Amino acid sequence: MEAVAANPAITVVALCGSLRKGSFNRGLIRSAIQICNASIPGMKIEYVDIAPLPFVNTDLEVNGSFPEPVEAFRRKILGADAFLFASPEYNYSMTGPLKNAIDWASRPPNAWANKPAAIVSTGGSFGGGRSQYHLRQVGVYLDLHFINKPELFVRAFEPPQKFDINGNLIDFETKEKLKQVLLSLQIFTLRLQGK
Amino acid sequence: MEAVAANPAITVVALCGSLRKGSFNRGLIRSAIQICNASIPGMKIEYVDIAPLPFVNTDLEVNGSFPEPVEAFRRKILGADAFLFASPEYNYSMTGPLKNAIDWASRPPNAWANKPAAIVSTGGSFGGGRSQYHLRQVGVYLDLHFINKPELFVRAFEPPQKFDINGNLIDFETKEKLKQVLLSLQIFTLRLQGK
Amino acid sequence: MEAVAANPAITVVALCGSLRKGSFNRGLIRSAIQICNASIPGMKIEYVDIAPLPFVNTDLEVNGSFPEPVEAFRRKILGADAFLFASPEYNYSMTGPLKNAIDWASRPPNAWANKPAAIVSTGGSFGGGRSQYHLRQVGVYLDLHFINKPELFVRAFEPPQKFDINGNLIDFETKEKLKQVLLSLQIFTLRLQGK
Amino acid sequence: MEAVAANPAITVVALCGSLRKGSFNRGLIRSAIQICNASIPGMKIEYVDIAPLPFVNTDLEVNGSFPEPVEAFRRKILGADAFLFASPEYNYSMTGPLKNAIDWASRPPNAWANKPAAIVSTGGSFGGGRSQYHLRQVGVYLDLHFINKPELFVRAFEPPQKFDINGNLIDFETKEKLKQVLLSLQIFTLRLQGK
Repeated sequence: MEAVAANPAITVVALCGSLRKGSFNRGLIRSAIQICNASIPGMKIEYVDIAPLPFVNTDLEVNGSFPEPVEAFRRKILGADAFLFASPEYNYSMTGPLKNAIDWASRPPNAWANKPAAIVSTGGSFGGGRSQYHLRQVGVYLDLHFINKPELFVRAFEPPQKFDINGNLIDFETKEKLKQVLLSLQIFTLRLQGK
Repeated sequence: MEAVAANPAITVVALCGSLRKGSFNRGLIRSAIQICNASIPGMKIEYVDIAPLPFVNTDLEVNGSFPEPVEAFRRKILGADAFLFASPEYNYSMTGPLKNAIDWASRPPNAWANKPAAIVSTGGSFGGGRSQYHLRQVGVYLDLHFINKPELFVRAFEPPQKFDINGNLIDFETKEKLKQVLLSLQIFTLRLQGK
Repeated sequence: MEAVAANPAITVVALCGSLRKGSFNRGLIRSAIQICNASIPGMKIEYVDIAPLPFVNTDLEVNGSFPEPVEAFRRKILGADAFLFASPEYNYSMTGPLKNAIDWASRPPNAWANKPAAIVSTGGSFGGGRSQYHLRQVGVYLDLHFINKPELFVRAFEPPQKFDINGNLIDFETKEKLKQVLLSLQIFTLRLQGK
Repeated sequence: MEAVAANPAITVVALCGSLRKGSFNRGLIRSAIQICNASIPGMKIEYVDIAPLPFVNTDLEVNGSFPEPVEAFRRKILGADAFLFASPEYNYSMTGPLKNAIDWASRPPNAWANKPAAIVSTGGSFGGGRSQYHLRQVGVYLDLHFINKPELFVRAFEPPQKFDINGNLIDFETKEKLKQVLLSLQIFTLRLQGK
């Protein structure tokens, strides 16, 4: 109780840009949730699935309301204190489904505004890095405040093995880096909240 | 006939990142088709709708085949000599539906490879400009060769009026600029084809 | 006096990417200084010239010390609470001299770390916009926290006239927008400082 | 002789963004020159030093002429058929000296226009990758045509050792990749020249 008072609870909504079952990027989110539960008091991560959303099309906005899956998604974004994006790199940028979800929640009133966020990614080559910088530019308009450090780019296909066959993160060192990202997000969130 | 022999036919597939009916960006494509038909012999533009595609998810690829709308889309991309993207800017980047379509056609074997392309856009602020540079970065991996000049960013909400109420381009000067983009794409396509 | 106590003094160092005498971008900084002095209590802008710096070359770092102009520049950066960049766009990115100055001050120990910043620019086309997004990416490594809004891109060559023949900002509306940038920087600085 | 006639000579000007003596990026250029001389008939690489250039400042342009080092540099760029950039990443972008050199040669008449180019880089993290994408955006305005593939990002600090103590490339596999970049540049240059 007193711990909560001293270290107020932060709700982080986590989104993943990949829709496939075995996604390593979703594995990063599962791991982040476990790390948070086990060792970061005062912060809780909720994974929100973006698959139910339709493609963005403002013709679907009728009388100022959105299709039901969009309304539900927007409520989640609006209720969050901070965001964790697992943003795989497809063809040197974000994925379509992630961009689509981001755009729905930005429709007025912009549900992202003035909140902190962190990005993680995994993949070949730069470990998803090119996607992260495009997402950061998107964040300027969304009015997100991204942590700068540490950045996490997990090279999925270089030894040691990072993920098991089900897409679960199994590499200790990567888990430790992921934890540092979460702690940085927590500190930055409290700082921006003036707490 | 001899003119056709001297100036071989180029098929351009045109894609639009916005799905809404009244899209100004789709209006740019309609205008490009008219301009091409009326005054650019040797080049033909075919508009291909990206709305029927599902979200990218490699779990949908079964035994090396794609869902039927994806197969149809990939055949169109594979058959094209060049591409025209009308790429609106949503939150400082491409739209989700456009990125989604691009990613489907990039699945091996990459249907975009080694072909020329041009981008046009319209919108507020930079007229869609930030989207164009993200798309150019995507093109590096796709192995697209974009024309450099002229670039076309149509500021939709600055006088004189650019589009009518149905999203049709009505501004003469913008039509002239659009024609220059198309001519540049034609020349670059022939150059890359060694013709 | 009590007002000063309640609203602590912020020192902003302002840098300009153009070295030419009549630079409009430097005009933006002169105007910002005047606006700050006249109507933003608690914040002071100091212009620091980047022209005396040599090109970045780590061979010039001897026994852990930098050439004297670099040492002087680094002290200014280190002493600042926040930064204002006037970043003209040359060939779709930052200028060489600005990037050079930024890089010198980033040499360990990084003098930029953990401080807020704002960017303004003026020019043709996007008013310097492409330069701003490259600078924002640089800021990730520098660990700068840029304000997101408002952004200021001054289209120097569109009516009404923005600058006089000496490069002084004369357009009232642009001055008002510039003031909003400065107020946003002040608020964000205080917020990040926990004040 | 007949081989030369069948495979016309291409002159590539190579620039390096780092000025320090032991630069690994300059090492890439030295290696490229050797590879070209040894095993790529029809192409020759000339390294051009950018250190003698002053900072870009259009006040230095008098009666339509440039300072002598700038004139000499511009002549080299103008005389080239293609370009090879060794572009180290400083703070997630190009170096100041490289951007400065690029900007001088872009002053009207733009000496880069309509020519092919390739980029290589080495460094920690992404091996200079972030710099390459900023340079590609600059190339749009310069009207450079970059090869898309292969890209070369040499991770300088991961085993096996890539460079010796003098900055010479010693890794066989990297040399082979560098050769593939040069061959791709040669093919693309001939294709754009219609040969």
